[in-house]
Amino acid sequence: MLLPDPPACAFASDNAAGAHPDIIEAIQRANHGHALAYGDDVHTRSCEQAFNELFGQPVTTLLALNGTGANVLAMGAALRTAEAVLCSEWSHINLDETGAPERILGTKLLTAPAPDGRLSPDAIDTAARDIGVMHHAQPGLVSITQATEWGTLYSTDDIAAICDRAHAHGMRVHLDGARLANAVAAAGKGPDGLRDMVVATGVDVVSFGGTKNGLLGAEAVVFINRDLAHRAIYLRKQVNQLASKMRFIAAQFSTYLEDDRWLTWAGHANDMALRLHHQAQQILGDQAGPAPQVNSVFPTLVPEIATPLRDWCFFWDWDRSTDRYRWMTAWDTTSDDVSRFCEGLAALAA
Amino acid sequence: MLLPDPPACAFASDNAAGAHPDIIEAIQRANHGHALAYGDDVHTRSCEQAFNELFGQPVTTLLALNGTGANVLAMGAALRTAEAVLCSEWSHINLDETGAPERILGTKLLTAPAPDGRLSPDAIDTAARDIGVMHHAQPGLVSITQATEWGTLYSTDDIAAICDRAHAHGMRVHLDGARLANAVAAAGKGPDGLRDMVVATGVDVVSFGGTKNGLLGAEAVVFINRDLAHRAIYLRKQVNQLASKMRFIAAQFSTYLEDDRWLTWAGHANDMALRLHHQAQQILGDQAGPAPQVNSVFPTLVPEIATPLRDWCFFWDWDRSTDRYRWMTAWDTTSDDVSRFCEGLAALAA
Amino acid sequence: MLLPDPPACAFASDNAAGAHPDIIEAIQRANHGHALAYGDDVHTRSCEQAFNELFGQPVTTLLALNGTGANVLAMGAALRTAEAVLCSEWSHINLDETGAPERILGTKLLTAPAPDGRLSPDAIDTAARDIGVMHHAQPGLVSITQATEWGTLYSTDDIAAICDRAHAHGMRVHLDGARLANAVAAAGKGPDGLRDMVVATGVDVVSFGGTKNGLLGAEAVVFINRDLAHRAIYLRKQVNQLASKMRFIAAQFSTYLEDDRWLTWAGHANDMALRLHHQAQQILGDQAGPAPQVNSVFPTLVPEIATPLRDWCFFWDWDRSTDRYRWMTAWDTTSDDVSRFCEGLAALAA
Amino acid sequence: MLLPDPPACAFASDNAAGAHPDIIEAIQRANHGHALAYGDDVHTRSCEQAFNELFGQPVTTLLALNGTGANVLAMGAALRTAEAVLCSEWSHINLDETGAPERILGTKLLTAPAPDGRLSPDAIDTAARDIGVMHHAQPGLVSITQATEWGTLYSTDDIAAICDRAHAHGMRVHLDGARLANAVAAAGKGPDGLRDMVVATGVDVVSFGGTKNGLLGAEAVVFINRDLAHRAIYLRKQVNQLASKMRFIAAQFSTYLEDDRWLTWAGHANDMALRLHHQAQQILGDQAGPAPQVNSVFPTLVPEIATPLRDWCFFWDWDRSTDRYRWMTAWDTTSDDVSRFCEGLAALAA
Repeated sequence: MLLPDPPACAFASDNAAGAHPDIIEAIQRANHGHALAYGDDVHTRSCEQAFNELFGQPVTTLLALNGTGANVLAMGAALRTAEAVLCSEWSHINLDETGAPERILGTKLLTAPAPDGRLSPDAIDTAARDIGVMHHAQPGLVSITQATEWGTLYSTDDIAAICDRAHAHGMRVHLDGARLANAVAAAGKGPDGLRDMVVATGVDVVSFGGTKNGLLGAEAVVFINRDLAHRAIYLRKQVNQLASKMRFIAAQFSTYLEDDRWLTWAGHANDMALRLHHQAQQILGDQAGPAPQVNSVFPTLVPEIATPLRDWCFFWDWDRSTDRYRWMTAWDTTSDDVSRFCEGLAALAA
Repeated sequence: MLLPDPPACAFASDNAAGAHPDIIEAIQRANHGHALAYGDDVHTRSCEQAFNELFGQPVTTLLALNGTGANVLAMGAALRTAEAVLCSEWSHINLDETGAPERILGTKLLTAPAPDGRLSPDAIDTAARDIGVMHHAQPGLVSITQATEWGTLYSTDDIAAICDRAHAHGMRVHLDGARLANAVAAAGKGPDGLRDMVVATGVDVVSFGGTKNGLLGAEAVVFINRDLAHRAIYLRKQVNQLASKMRFIAAQFSTYLEDDRWLTWAGHANDMALRLHHQAQQILGDQAGPAPQVNSVFPTLVPEIATPLRDWCFFWDWDRSTDRYRWMTAWDTTSDDVSRFCEGLAALAA
Repeated sequence: MLLPDPPACAFASDNAAGAHPDIIEAIQRANHGHALAYGDDVHTRSCEQAFNELFGQPVTTLLALNGTGANVLAMGAALRTAEAVLCSEWSHINLDETGAPERILGTKLLTAPAPDGRLSPDAIDTAARDIGVMHHAQPGLVSITQATEWGTLYSTDDIAAICDRAHAHGMRVHLDGARLANAVAAAGKGPDGLRDMVVATGVDVVSFGGTKNGLLGAEAVVFINRDLAHRAIYLRKQVNQLASKMRFIAAQFSTYLEDDRWLTWAGHANDMALRLHHQAQQILGDQAGPAPQVNSVFPTLVPEIATPLRDWCFFWDWDRSTDRYRWMTAWDTTSDDVSRFCEGLAALAA
Repeated sequence: MLLPDPPACAFASDNAAGAHPDIIEAIQRANHGHALAYGDDVHTRSCEQAFNELFGQPVTTLLALNGTGANVLAMGAALRTAEAVLCSEWSHINLDETGAPERILGTKLLTAPAPDGRLSPDAIDTAARDIGVMHHAQPGLVSITQATEWGTLYSTDDIAAICDRAHAHGMRVHLDGARLANAVAAAGKGPDGLRDMVVATGVDVVSFGGTKNGLLGAEAVVFINRDLAHRAIYLRKQVNQLASKMRFIAAQFSTYLEDDRWLTWAGHANDMALRLHHQAQQILGDQAGPAPQVNSVFPTLVPEIATPLRDWCFFWDWDRSTDRYRWMTAWDTTSDDVSRFCEGLAALAA
């Protein structure tokens, strides 16, 4: 079968995209003279201030190097002695971090069923029954992902309910926000949406992603509950997340937060996913999966289509037991990429 | 006292320097279209090939994010069950990593006296006496730093002797090469010096530094003994050292290794340290410390000089018990920086 | 309601029973003069020899202090760098060890569905799909429990199938035998049953329980695959499982293994469970649960019966979501205890 | 050379001694009927009460299985996130636990010089200089041993000074009391001496040894600062120190504390060490070492004596670099053992 040229940008992942040119420029601007290492520099101070403004209150922000590291740091700071983490069975910390949390933190992950990736508040009550029983892992932290690994979203009320339940049981709440920008963009309220979603609801600590949304490589751990941050700078070094030339991480984030770039870029990716879903639905019908809430589409594909399509333009499987795959858009996906990809799909599905 | 303007580049650390413009350009060139994340891309393949050529034989290279992380990864891969690490009391892994090796690897560091930063081969024999005694930590890995934290160098024969002793006792050898480029530059034999120093001697695994010598933020763990690397890719993820947009790490290293830039830049820093020592000696005499072998000078300063000098142009203390300080040069230090700094020193020492 | 006096021995757990008088006598016999600590004594040598004979071949036996510790030691010795453990969702290591394996070994437990407590060989194939994928935990060890936490038994063929699948994927097999004696007693072939069950099948390492079957407090880790034991003595000390006055652990096991006491005692507990089930079935019908294979009965009880029955003679709930409880017999349970307990049950169920 | 028969009790270690007959009797008395496992029994309640009385105030007592485990549990409960332990270079936790603290707690041990085994209060100030420096391990807990590994004693004032300095820097204090009984016996004030030594001085948590002083195998972690104990029961399980048949641990301690047996037995061992030193001094002169404060003598021996003497009646070397050895007495050492040993010594030294 004759397929068109594949699109310039594949739909494998938003971290297969490069860095936005504004980010490279920001790095270049920061690359001037000497600046003390490890964050003792004006770029980092200024970036921390930008996070305070974004969150609408003083927060403690620790810049970090990668997503797994940011999660490990956030959770490690929030856990007390001999506590475990409650999370969705589909969570990135559970499935996609090679056991890093267990390895570094020595903590057990207690997984709750979550068919669409979202943890139910009731799962917190169920887990809490083990509190005080000396033989069972003691849940002390709830970790949720927004947007989830299945591209679904918790509503603000969902998050508030989770925080309320968790806090009622003496647990804290971590939000893995590797794609929080996409979630906030989807909410359509600008940066206020972030404050609604994670500050007003009572989230204690957020892994605020950057790399998947146009940065070169930069993550931030933001402690809204600053009590948890008291010893976090030592922990950051221990978990290999302290950048020496920190200014280059800080400069990326300062530019990212400026002029709502983080929302604009994430919103674009979301739009492209909607477009992709729309076009794919015309070819696959319901097999195109539900309309995307953020920047990923989860079609069900028969092997006869999936295999040649992936050979032509790579993407990942997402649930082998149900033949579901993931197509993901990014800050740089174009309408033309989408059209070209759907041409290929149409040709194979014909 | 009236002091001149401080130099543009301070002497605090080589990681206070920025990135070389060639490195920024390399990142820009790599920032084109999509590339699969986590190292499954042509940039990483090409970078790995460059390391094979540099080491003169196939090696296993794992790119990493920071120096502590590279050391933890290298040591973790080289350690067997219930083994400890033997290192100098002055080693970075012992003093300057906030206990990250103990935290992540659960390993004990056994420290040997090393007045000038260099571990003696005899210390290996002494430590080896505990092998087989079930109550004592079992040394399984020797970790040395080249150039050392005191700016001293092991000769090639020293390293060979250390490797021989270690291997005779069934131990492996890790070399923390955060400033290996400076050591190889000092040897004056071009890239051959690297092969003499770490391949012919029998070193098993090297943390090959980049960030301190002009990169934006990139380290490499190079397994010369590839048997140790079999499970290292999983460990890299577990210890938070896997970059998603790996191409940007790879691009930095490829350019760094090309045309011996790594040696040129390190050699320049070494030259500037010599110049700094020479000028400082005229002011301080023997208190300027020994002539530098690489890019750091360790003067002894009375508080009356040290305090105002640091206020004017910051640098770190290195041994509070003996009033020794560290002045460090970098790839971007200029003769003018040196002269200006020594003007300030002369004014205060007068 | 007027209930009879509760039985002298409750049905809470086999570790609520005391030590068999023969064991106390063995300790007294060993309590003579000085013996070097930590196992360097004739009692330990002799005990190790008894294990060699029991297993029908030279094995490496490490005596240990408690069940969780024995499991952690066995698994820690069998795991390679960055590997995870595959186990049943109901396994003791997953549910009842407060996350000790994760804490001490830094390993992830991958749990497979196991409605009756038995891991399916197919679960091994499923888990093995992640081998080689760098983002996913890497299963390297399968841990099964015999008898299981639900009182079920793997057949010898089941265990052989599990070992075959595991080994085919390069994994090793650990058997948590806290109640292995009960399983072997149930097989009815005497000590030959043990060799059929764990040696001929290919199990690599066994936690061979003692405390639940009449010992004062003693467990053994038996490495059939002795390659895994090379560094285990150091690990035993590290995981807090090295007894100083080891002779008292050894003396318990030597007596336990002598004259097949371990089988006699476990067989008695099994018989009492059958008797208990038989009598309870006449009262509860099918709600008495399936006929026991070893020493536990799992009835379904309505709260109106469960609550006063537990208040009168304590036992544990086993699955709160399905109102199932556990009644457990021990080496010292008497027919009279059973009858008396069933009198109370009958009175409450009337 | 013709040597007499060696003494019935060697001088290898107090943990080479057996259990006192009173302890075996106590176990037998507790071995009656069923008792809930894991400490939910009257024996454990009663033992906890005995500790409250001994310490003169409510304390939190967690019974444990061995000395390394007790230390790991005590330290783990007392450490906050990312903290390190300051201890003497000669401490058991540093030299004789195979790296268990690092392995299980992921903590670094910072060692201070201590020529006679005693940590100086000044070492605390020195270590405290690193507090707040993000690259250095953060001392959060001071661990001292009483009596020390060199048989020396801290005075009550010494301990008070250490606690004051530690607390002034925000650190806590752990006392490894594997031989605390010998230290209190040496103080000669009865059980009041314990309260003077560890309660009035401000020690936060004590590993209260039993095994080395006549128990079968039992240790206790006593939290005087009960705030540190809040999550310790979960940690005890995680670090493999929870006994299932806890009543047998409790019964040992209850009898041990009753009628000051712990002091009587330790006092006897101390007396025998004095006698041994006195007789040895007549043979060896100053080479017999200083007069013992507790139950160990540290002679300096030439190989010509040491080797045949050890072959005849085993004991351990203590510092190979200075030819020092350790002779240790126990609760069961007799005057005849001492005389007979010194006969052998005299014969060899002649």
